[in-house]
Amino acid sequence: MTDAATSNALPPVVALRRRFHARPELGFLEYGIAAEAASTLTALGWTVQAGPEVMRREAMLGVPGAEAIAAARARALAEGADPAWIARMPDGMTGVVGTLDRGPGPVVALRFDIDALPIEEADALAHPPAAAGFGSAHPGRMHACGHDGHAAIGLEVARLLTAAEWSGKVLLIFQPAEEGGRGALPMVEAGVAAEATHFYAAHLGLGLPSGVVAAEARGFLGSAKIDAVFEGRAAHAGAAPQDGRHAILAAAHAVGALQALPRHGAELTQVNVGRIEGGSGRNVIPDRCRIEFEVRAETEPTLDALHARALAALEGAAALAGCAVRTELMGRTASFLSSPEAAARVARVAAAQGTEVRDVHHVGGGEDAAFFVRAAQARGGEAGYFILGADLADGHHSPRFDFDEAALVPGAALFAALALDALSGAPA
Amino acid sequence: MTDAATSNALPPVVALRRRFHARPELGFLEYGIAAEAASTLTALGWTVQAGPEVMRREAMLGVPGAEAIAAARARALAEGADPAWIARMPDGMTGVVGTLDRGPGPVVALRFDIDALPIEEADALAHPPAAAGFGSAHPGRMHACGHDGHAAIGLEVARLLTAAEWSGKVLLIFQPAEEGGRGALPMVEAGVAAEATHFYAAHLGLGLPSGVVAAEARGFLGSAKIDAVFEGRAAHAGAAPQDGRHAILAAAHAVGALQALPRHGAELTQVNVGRIEGGSGRNVIPDRCRIEFEVRAETEPTLDALHARALAALEGAAALAGCAVRTELMGRTASFLSSPEAAARVARVAAAQGTEVRDVHHVGGGEDAAFFVRAAQARGGEAGYFILGADLADGHHSPRFDFDEAALVPGAALFAALALDALSGAPA
Amino acid sequence: MTDAATSNALPPVVALRRRFHARPELGFLEYGIAAEAASTLTALGWTVQAGPEVMRREAMLGVPGAEAIAAARARALAEGADPAWIARMPDGMTGVVGTLDRGPGPVVALRFDIDALPIEEADALAHPPAAAGFGSAHPGRMHACGHDGHAAIGLEVARLLTAAEWSGKVLLIFQPAEEGGRGALPMVEAGVAAEATHFYAAHLGLGLPSGVVAAEARGFLGSAKIDAVFEGRAAHAGAAPQDGRHAILAAAHAVGALQALPRHGAELTQVNVGRIEGGSGRNVIPDRCRIEFEVRAETEPTLDALHARALAALEGAAALAGCAVRTELMGRTASFLSSPEAAARVARVAAAQGTEVRDVHHVGGGEDAAFFVRAAQARGGEAGYFILGADLADGHHSPRFDFDEAALVPGAALFAALALDALSGAPA
Amino acid sequence: MTDAATSNALPPVVALRRRFHARPELGFLEYGIAAEAASTLTALGWTVQAGPEVMRREAMLGVPGAEAIAAARARALAEGADPAWIARMPDGMTGVVGTLDRGPGPVVALRFDIDALPIEEADALAHPPAAAGFGSAHPGRMHACGHDGHAAIGLEVARLLTAAEWSGKVLLIFQPAEEGGRGALPMVEAGVAAEATHFYAAHLGLGLPSGVVAAEARGFLGSAKIDAVFEGRAAHAGAAPQDGRHAILAAAHAVGALQALPRHGAELTQVNVGRIEGGSGRNVIPDRCRIEFEVRAETEPTLDALHARALAALEGAAALAGCAVRTELMGRTASFLSSPEAAARVARVAAAQGTEVRDVHHVGGGEDAAFFVRAAQARGGEAGYFILGADLADGHHSPRFDFDEAALVPGAALFAALALDALSGAPA
Repeated sequence: MTDAATSNALPPVVALRRRFHARPELGFLEYGIAAEAASTLTALGWTVQAGPEVMRREAMLGVPGAEAIAAARARALAEGADPAWIARMPDGMTGVVGTLDRGPGPVVALRFDIDALPIEEADALAHPPAAAGFGSAHPGRMHACGHDGHAAIGLEVARLLTAAEWSGKVLLIFQPAEEGGRGALPMVEAGVAAEATHFYAAHLGLGLPSGVVAAEARGFLGSAKIDAVFEGRAAHAGAAPQDGRHAILAAAHAVGALQALPRHGAELTQVNVGRIEGGSGRNVIPDRCRIEFEVRAETEPTLDALHARALAALEGAAALAGCAVRTELMGRTASFLSSPEAAARVARVAAAQGTEVRDVHHVGGGEDAAFFVRAAQARGGEAGYFILGADLADGHHSPRFDFDEAALVPGAALFAALALDALSGAPA
Repeated sequence: MTDAATSNALPPVVALRRRFHARPELGFLEYGIAAEAASTLTALGWTVQAGPEVMRREAMLGVPGAEAIAAARARALAEGADPAWIARMPDGMTGVVGTLDRGPGPVVALRFDIDALPIEEADALAHPPAAAGFGSAHPGRMHACGHDGHAAIGLEVARLLTAAEWSGKVLLIFQPAEEGGRGALPMVEAGVAAEATHFYAAHLGLGLPSGVVAAEARGFLGSAKIDAVFEGRAAHAGAAPQDGRHAILAAAHAVGALQALPRHGAELTQVNVGRIEGGSGRNVIPDRCRIEFEVRAETEPTLDALHARALAALEGAAALAGCAVRTELMGRTASFLSSPEAAARVARVAAAQGTEVRDVHHVGGGEDAAFFVRAAQARGGEAGYFILGADLADGHHSPRFDFDEAALVPGAALFAALALDALSGAPA
Repeated sequence: MTDAATSNALPPVVALRRRFHARPELGFLEYGIAAEAASTLTALGWTVQAGPEVMRREAMLGVPGAEAIAAARARALAEGADPAWIARMPDGMTGVVGTLDRGPGPVVALRFDIDALPIEEADALAHPPAAAGFGSAHPGRMHACGHDGHAAIGLEVARLLTAAEWSGKVLLIFQPAEEGGRGALPMVEAGVAAEATHFYAAHLGLGLPSGVVAAEARGFLGSAKIDAVFEGRAAHAGAAPQDGRHAILAAAHAVGALQALPRHGAELTQVNVGRIEGGSGRNVIPDRCRIEFEVRAETEPTLDALHARALAALEGAAALAGCAVRTELMGRTASFLSSPEAAARVARVAAAQGTEVRDVHHVGGGEDAAFFVRAAQARGGEAGYFILGADLADGHHSPRFDFDEAALVPGAALFAALALDALSGAPA
Repeated sequence: MTDAATSNALPPVVALRRRFHARPELGFLEYGIAAEAASTLTALGWTVQAGPEVMRREAMLGVPGAEAIAAARARALAEGADPAWIARMPDGMTGVVGTLDRGPGPVVALRFDIDALPIEEADALAHPPAAAGFGSAHPGRMHACGHDGHAAIGLEVARLLTAAEWSGKVLLIFQPAEEGGRGALPMVEAGVAAEATHFYAAHLGLGLPSGVVAAEARGFLGSAKIDAVFEGRAAHAGAAPQDGRHAILAAAHAVGALQALPRHGAELTQVNVGRIEGGSGRNVIPDRCRIEFEVRAETEPTLDALHARALAALEGAAALAGCAVRTELMGRTASFLSSPEAAARVARVAAAQGTEVRDVHHVGGGEDAAFFVRAAQARGGEAGYFILGADLADGHHSPRFDFDEAALVPGAALFAALALDALSGAPA
């Protein structure tokens, strides 16, 4: 990281985002960013919980192996993380919750996701992070979705709310592993935000231009994330191919079958096989191939049906090539809708800040904030998800993704104002 | 490695084989075994050439990256290799040739291949190398084809021929990267064995039982080894899958198309996609997928036709999914037949040693000794490839592969006797 | 057809539907039903145009071959059609338009589609048409979508409007080949309904229960219907498969690729390969395979993109197997929305008849009435598409499809009342 | 058929071949040619058996439906067949055996196959049958393998042997349904040729040039012929594709899986999906798709293994798409080798006629004469299969296939001489 990334001339939230951007960490491996969040919140006087205090181990899906976790912890320590916080986050339990309790009043919970993606960031000078010297320093990892900005906003909100006057309680939730839909549920099941009367989360970008806020995001599909391993039988590919069972061929048919799962007549659905890896030597009939995929749907029954047909397709593809298949559910998100009150409050508060407001912005991904939103709504609370417009250099999850940093300062201001508005007891 | 592996009670060729077995190295990365061969030959008084002296760089296909080469060299040094020899083998040029010139007479070249496979060796106690303490100490690498035995025989032959009396010249060729068909051609093109009047190579096992020798191996197909990389376009799998171009889907169709390349009406052909790897995150339309495959055929025209149709299938599969594809030829072997004289000489010499001899043993793989055999035959020399029978624990290229070590001592004796017979000027 | 089908006890519109049901005719081959419509309208005093007078030949896609047309004409004649009308409908031009001009006033056009499907009708006694003796008498053909009911309603509306008093002009359009999206465009391009101030069409069933009317149908996707023929090279499958180019393998990859065409992040899309046929003998490498498919999308740009990617997938699949491919566009529909005025008028008129009314009913198919609706709206007219609820025995296009005939009498009454309301000059 | 086809200038065997060529009949439907053979043999004084007398019904696989059989009988009658013979060949039992018993001595059986293929014959003037006016008069049917020539030779042999002097017994077997490997086994199981001491069959062409005879054909693989029907569930492709189960998609995966069945390391194998047909309308999720395929192998164990894996692939492909599959074994051939005595006799007799003789000619197809050969050999008899060289216009099973008719006269002469040689008791 060059001086540019930590220039004093930058607003703190921007400098922070750049530091986070340069050190992307995959889900359940966000030791560096989580430790920094915990240290910062503590320094600001917030009560901080982390690791098993805020995550239920049994609800964690798709946890990386012990070796990957050990490496992530070591790297975070090498990059300056506080060993005390690292020690409190075993086994990939990288969730952090800061609480500031100032007496009677509403309980407002804000969620910020912190994980990055397994993408090799572009290093061309046309790519702003590379040009400005804060490109990823972690090979094969990239903040290509904007969670670096979310995390930076979260800590800026902590500063703003610490400095403001209010009564009630605020929870700032730094959630790991949003990608893959794995981090929210273990926190919800650990009781995080169980007393919240208000819950808000947001996303930068998503096609909404800089300077605009959408009071409500629609179209987040529910999803299931599944890994499958095909197991065949190795044999010499020249001398005895007839003795082999070709696991890559099985997986190839599975890829075709999954991508061709039936569309629905009235709902959006999605399928993606995002990873494949298999085989050993070129002249060995491959005895193993692994794929990682997800299915998405607007409603739970359709998601369940798609999930079931995906599993059946895997079984058929394995049988077709004389192989077996094992599957593992690695993550799951649900669909959700913002409370009308939440959307109204966001619209009112944002407009009061002079921001251009749209009622609804359609997005087509998945978001495990769903579990927080649904839990809050189930208890009668107000819960919403909004969009902070930010021009993009390229689409989310592209190696050339980047967002307009001008969205960060007003984004933090909106979150803070929203919390204060809710804490004031104002109706939506 | 336990004492068992270096027990004094073992014949030297067996002890040597066990040491080689414990330290398997992939093609063009055989720094440890090559340096040991060079050191041993030098100590026995042979003239040794290595690296660029015996390999033409331009003819090397499928060379590992600089990082892998550096790691292999470092490991060999750490395991005791002579730095002087390591220094003489840059850029994966791990070929070694020992020459003993004792004046006028025939020039006999013997070829021993030394590379291992990217296979994780079984560690169950039922697996003899594991039980006897000489299982692979290199994770994910294994001598699963018997080249450890070939290399050990080669050095034992050096000892036997050093001690014998004869006139003429002998070349002992320790060839890298036989797997993948990559190591022989660069040595042939560097002029190795260009003056040989007799050339012999052999393989252990291949279905022939212990105690039996086959005077001639038939059925080695010619092959082409090809890597292909499909390039699509990344996009968010939920928000904008229509903007992506799905490289894994392209590769899946390619796998199906390659495995379904037309059979031939009169010749054996083979196809195998042995490796696949692609994609990044589960929720990203994958923009890259790589496959590694090979095609084999009995004759050159059929191999060329199959090769051409494979490339066309790749192009079609890429186009089908809106992707592009790049291919690289990684290796090539040719089919060949032993000279009748060579087969006759092997049969006669082996029988004289009291060994049971079969005329022909059918094998179905590929063997780049083909280039040595063809070169020798083209110059009017006698060249042959025979089989040293050895009972197997499991098939070649299986994680449980192991061969009957009782084949090593007589195997070395046969090679030595064969060389002496040829050097004597005896007709086949 | 038994007496049951023509029982005097049945309302005329029901008896008519049963007669039509028993004689299903595919698109552009509806000589029997078209001739009956023309004869009936003429008898009622309407001016009737047919064939080239109401269809532009150049706009007809997917026209059956001359042999099929000749057979359909012959069968219609054999079943009693008026030869004069058959003669006026050459080359599959089976459209019929009846006009009743009663002077100044609005011009109201009503569209009724008349074609059947290539489905073998169930003949179990549990299937009402079979039980009541009016099952299909044309093997492999079936009114499995309800167009028999539409056509019967159309002629009943003619009777009702003939008997009513009004001023203005009414057009009753009997449109062929709605299945496949082929019949409407040639009529629109021939100028049919070019002067209409009001246009209405409707569909029975589609999931809406008996007794209910939906004032507006939403969700009709635009579509493209495409045929593709893969051409390879024949060869003896045992003696020389390497000389063949396997057209069925090419088509199989095309099927997989088409069904796996990328979903859209924000729009419903659909793909279906509905027919395949190829090859000759079992022991011949097949040199020809034909597929028939369609793609659908909510918007024209997405439909165009999907169409383009489908064609690219076909080219890739052909290349993959060394084949060529020819494609032909067989039909096309567009998406559309009812005019708000039309929906309001339907709702008001239906409610006035005592019918339960829903504002919107979502359907997921395609409907080439789109071309009439869009043409009317482009001229400033009021155009709408509504749903006549009818309980179903099984889904549309199933061999066991049947609808509740109780929907016919009120359906015709609604169409007639709607026309009279529009003719009266009443605002929507 | 023009005069050209029956020109008096042609040798009788050529004229006969042309008549047969113009009236091709599929397997088990060869009523015309079988009746003519029966009539001719009877007229020559041979004892003729037909239908159930020479075929075991239970062993008949792949018998056409009753409707097709009725149509074939009607056509044969219309084309002049003797009704008495037609009546003796019910249910597709179109086998005919002529016997001439002249007392003690060897029993010599000669086999001639008579069926045609479902191929539309080329009608270009460059195609000799079209040019000379004896192209197929049966649409979609063609003698594209030369069985018209075989049948003509068979009747010419009858004339030659009738006119010759010898002692012993001769059987002339006119076998239906060689294509598909269906006709021989029912005849063998009915006891045809059970007493034969000598059995011979031959094929025209197969790559051997005119004027040459190969004493032995090698490389006939054993085969299994299988039909599979995939059954899914129909649904409207736009409104409810999620309710469908796509039988064409299942079949597409099956095609890919079958064509990619593993090759064998040491044996030739073959696979071909030769036919596919499925679906109904374009906008209906297809609920049915049928494929017809075959697998071939050099040995029975390999054939059995390939057969089993093919069935497993079908089950997997069906499951992959939520469908079911039914399969039916439609035919089966075995591999075989000529008796060395038979090959020697053919070579000696052909050479004595002044013909150029090759010992062995490699062919790569299947041939159900295997069952006759194996049965004769199992009883200690001499049995062989030879090739009558004939230049070809295009490959067997091509629409432009034609063979050099100059091969017919010497072919019949060789068969007759061979029989006389065997009847004479001469050693091979």
